[in-house]
Order: sequence, then C-alpha cells, then structure tokens
Amino acid sequence: MFYIIDILGTISFAISGVLVALNKRMDAFGILIIAFVTATGGGMLRDVLIGDTPVFWMTNMTYVYVILATTISAVIIKRKIDYLKTPMFMFDTIGIGLYTLVGIQKGINLGLHPIICISLGTMSACFGGVLRDILCNQIPVIFRKEVYATACILGGVSFFLLRKLHVDSNFIYLISGVIIITIRLLAVRFKISLPNVYKDDVEEINL
Amino acid sequence: MFYIIDILGTISFAISGVLVALNKRMDAFGILIIAFVTATGGGMLRDVLIGDTPVFWMTNMTYVYVILATTISAVIIKRKIDYLKTPMFMFDTIGIGLYTLVGIQKGINLGLHPIICISLGTMSACFGGVLRDILCNQIPVIFRKEVYATACILGGVSFFLLRKLHVDSNFIYLISGVIIITIRLLAVRFKISLPNVYKDDVEEINL
Amino acid sequence: MFYIIDILGTISFAISGVLVALNKRMDAFGILIIAFVTATGGGMLRDVLIGDTPVFWMTNMTYVYVILATTISAVIIKRKIDYLKTPMFMFDTIGIGLYTLVGIQKGINLGLHPIICISLGTMSACFGGVLRDILCNQIPVIFRKEVYATACILGGVSFFLLRKLHVDSNFIYLISGVIIITIRLLAVRFKISLPNVYKDDVEEINL
Repeated sequence: MFYIIDILGTISFAISGVLVALNKRMDAFGILIIAFVTATGGGMLRDVLIGDTPVFWMTNMTYVYVILATTISAVIIKRKIDYLKTPMFMFDTIGIGLYTLVGIQKGINLGLHPIICISLGTMSACFGGVLRDILCNQIPVIFRKEVYATACILGGVSFFLLRKLHVDSNFIYLISGVIIITIRLLAVRFKISLPNVYKDDVEEINL
Repeated sequence: MFYIIDILGTISFAISGVLVALNKRMDAFGILIIAFVTATGGGMLRDVLIGDTPVFWMTNMTYVYVILATTISAVIIKRKIDYLKTPMFMFDTIGIGLYTLVGIQKGINLGLHPIICISLGTMSACFGGVLRDILCNQIPVIFRKEVYATACILGGVSFFLLRKLHVDSNFIYLISGVIIITIRLLAVRFKISLPNVYKDDVEEINL
Repeated sequence: MFYIIDILGTISFAISGVLVALNKRMDAFGILIIAFVTATGGGMLRDVLIGDTPVFWMTNMTYVYVILATTISAVIIKRKIDYLKTPMFMFDTIGIGLYTLVGIQKGINLGLHPIICISLGTMSACFGGVLRDILCNQIPVIFRKEVYATACILGGVSFFLLRKLHVDSNFIYLISGVIIITIRLLAVRFKISLPNVYKDDVEEINL
C-alpha cells in the first residue's frame, strides 16, 4: 500500500517537473533531469544531510524506471495533460503526506530530536520542488505560497503528539498522514494561506 | 565565550536572511527557510563535503531555537531593524571570524592539507550567504564584492603560519580571529576591495 | 596517461568557468569559485551522493593547484583566450570522456546498477557546468543544448554492452571513451541535437 502511494507520488512530482521544464523550453535531457530532481530531490537532500548514502534512488531501481516512463509519457501526451490535473493533484497531495512520514521515520531511526525529524519530513516532501525551481532559475514557488510546507509541519507535529500519547504506531502514521492530506485539500479548496507579514504595507510590489 | 559568539553570529546571519527574504516578498515559510539557510548553510555544506553527517544543526538544537526566535523577532520589528545595523555588523564580523576557525579546525581534525582547511573555513563563513542568494534567485553578492572571503582566507593563512612557528594554539585562534575581524572592519571602513580585473575595459556594464 | 587527460580536462573546465564569470563581471574571488565549481562540481556532487567523502579534491591537492594556476593565467590573458578555443574544445571533449569513465567506475566499485553507474558518469562530466550556471543565475546551458549529456549516456551504454561481451577492461575504457569523444565531435561538427519536443508548436518562444 505504502509502496503504491510512493509510486503515485513520484509520478505526480515527475509530471510537475516535466510541465515546468516544457514551459522553460528545455530539451529532452533537461526535461528528464528536472522531472528526476522534482521527484527525488527532497529525499536526496534528506539522505545527503543525514549521511544515508548512496542516496535512496541509487539502491532501488523502481524510482528510475517510474520517472523515465512518466517523463516519456508526459512529453508525448503533453497537450492533454490538463485532463490529468485533478488526479495529479490527489496523487501529489497523498504523496507529500507519505514523503513527510518517510522523512520523519528516517530521523527517528537516527535518534534525532522531533523538531529535526519534522524538518526532515518537510524537506523530503517539499524540497524536490525547491530544487526544480532553482534549476529552472526561478524563486521557489513554495517560498511564496506555502500550503504544502505548513501541512507537512502540522502533520509532523501531530505525529509526535500522538507518539507522546503512546498511540499504536500504525495509527500514528495513518492519522498524521490524513492530517497532512486534509490540511492541503482544505487550504487549496478555501484558498487559505499563511498570515501575510506584509499587511502593514500600502501595496504589494510585483516582482 | 566561543559559544556566545557562535550564537551572536547565527543571529546576525539569520537576520540578514530575513531581510533579503522580506525584500523578495516571501511568505512566513520562505522567510524561515532563507534565515535558516543563511545562518547554517556554510557549515552545512562543509559538513556534507567532508562527510560529517548528520550535519551540525541536527545534533544541537540550540541553532534551531535561536534561528526560530530570531526570525519571528525580526519579522515583528522589521520596520525598526535599521537601528540594529551597527551591532549586527559587529556580530556578523565576529561571527565570520569564528565560523572560519571552526571550519579550519574540522579540516585539521581530518588531517587535510592547510589549503583545504582554509577553504573549509572560508566556506563555513561565506557560503550561507551564497546559498541564500541562490534560493532568492540572485547572483551571490560575495562574488561581486568579496571583503568577507578575502578576510577569511588571509586569517586562515595566518593561522597556519602561526602554527608553523609553534605558537600556543589558544593564541593562534585569538590572533587569526582578530586578523579576520580587523581586515573586514578596515575593508568596510576604507572601502577596500580586490583589484578590479576589468580595469582595461572602458566602462562597466550594469547587470 | 589518464592523469594527464584529467589535468587537461580540469584546465578546460576551469577556463570555461572563468569565461562565464568574467562575462557576469564577477570579482577575483567569484571568478575563482566559479572556475573551481565548473571543474570539480560534477565529481563533487557524485562523491556527495554516493557518500565518498571527503570529496575527491580535498585529498589530492593537484586539482586545487591546477585550477588556481589556470584561473590566474586565464584572467591575465583573457583578451587572447579566443585563440585557445580549438585546443580547449578538444581537451574539454576528452575530459568529459574521461570524467564519465571515472564516474562509472566509482559506481561499479559500489556495486550499483548499470543505469545508476551511467548516471554517475554523466553527472561527473556534466554537472560542473550545471552548478556553474546556477551560481551565475542562468538556466543550465546543458538543459537546452545537450550534446554533452547524450554523448556521455551513449558512451556509458556501450561501456556496459562491452562489459556484457567480456571484452578486456582496458579495451572497454578505450572504446567507450572514444565513443563519447566521437559523438561529441560529430554532434558539434554537424550541429546534431536531440529531436525537438516542441516541433508541434507554431513558433519558439524566446526566453
């Protein structure tokens, strides 16, 4: 089950990379690299920072095959990719829930502090997109509209609260995963974002 | 003592990150990440390149708490942050002196060549700002006006010269730290910068 | 022999870094860092991702000396660097052949899958330029015109095909190195690039 969600999440992330790369008029190699970095970048950064090397995609070929197949398919059907927006959004949201939990678990295995574990979870879920945006020479989207990251952080906090209450670990995973997914869905549905720190300024500057 | 300087340096670096992020109209999450990367990025890169993982801020929670508190405070008082310019400049300058020494020491512990140790020191002190600028999608400031880096390199060179002379190690730290701080202060005071490699060109191009 | 090619490749990569940095009006420190990252970045990323730390240039001072000397020379003769275009192109091409083989060999030593080894080889040869472009705040050239990367990938594929055929390992190195070099030369000579995924669009957007 976890495995299938992981694959679906990888596919969604890879497609989002393909779309940005197409938009930047990259060639086939560029598109593949951007898709790859978007799908694996967060987990790769996590593995490098905790020293869990070779990084995860080097020892499990599934990721490479899935991303390769996704990229080729996405380029071929690119004119029709709009129809996939809704399922992609769902996979993507479920994917960040799962990625966050994987990152938290890796931190726990190393005996790190809960705050560090939550950071690792958020990093796993969100930094693929950050690396994608850096490679595409744009300010990371997530630093402007952070629904993603807030959902991961709150899910991570509930994970450790439930753990304090000695809830069964399968339930902890389930509940905190559902919390991340629900927050993301609600935030997008009701256009919730973080309180604006610029509210005392007269007008917004368009960058 | 070292510990207090480290904290003050971290605070100064974090505030510089907050200011750049505010300037780029980032949201709360973006501001926090930029503050964090500015304060820890140099040491984090150093730890990754030498394989000292999990990286330093994962095993000592002080950094996380200090940066979190600094970021929140800086956002709240952002209109008055100008008054802090002078103390911040001092902490920041003392901070780079200390960060350079920490980097050099880590290199020595691994038995690396003095030039590599000096690189690690300079990296610790300067690459937080480089990563901040990359995440904010601008050419790193330090590659244009490098007072910072030159001070770190010269301080590192004097560190190893004094070591050759078998000076007591406490003195070595003290003297080379003071050299870095003095060069930086003098350079800023007298607007010294590296000799211009473009001097044979008729005019500067504004980028 | 390998050693000399490695040095010549490093020199060519460093010069390409100097040229981009000069073009961005960087100061002496910026130029040095860009030259260094262009020459070592691919191998450095490879070493970090597989956990082979401290990264290669920290334990063999040759790279540091060569890049330092190259950068200083390149800045001094910068007005005449045009005359070096042809030999530089040759060193550079031979260099990517060699870098690819070094990356592949490191992957094999770790028992990684051939596809991962080929990725490591391509990364070693191509990601110095990617990091250079990120530091210079531009979309990586290689994601737009990928002659480089395709040559590395095809060379890597032939490496493993020859290995399957139990060819003597010295020959495998020689032949796949020559394949990489030949594809690159032919591609540049006959302006071959990857099939354009945008061919169904009416016009190209100039970014």
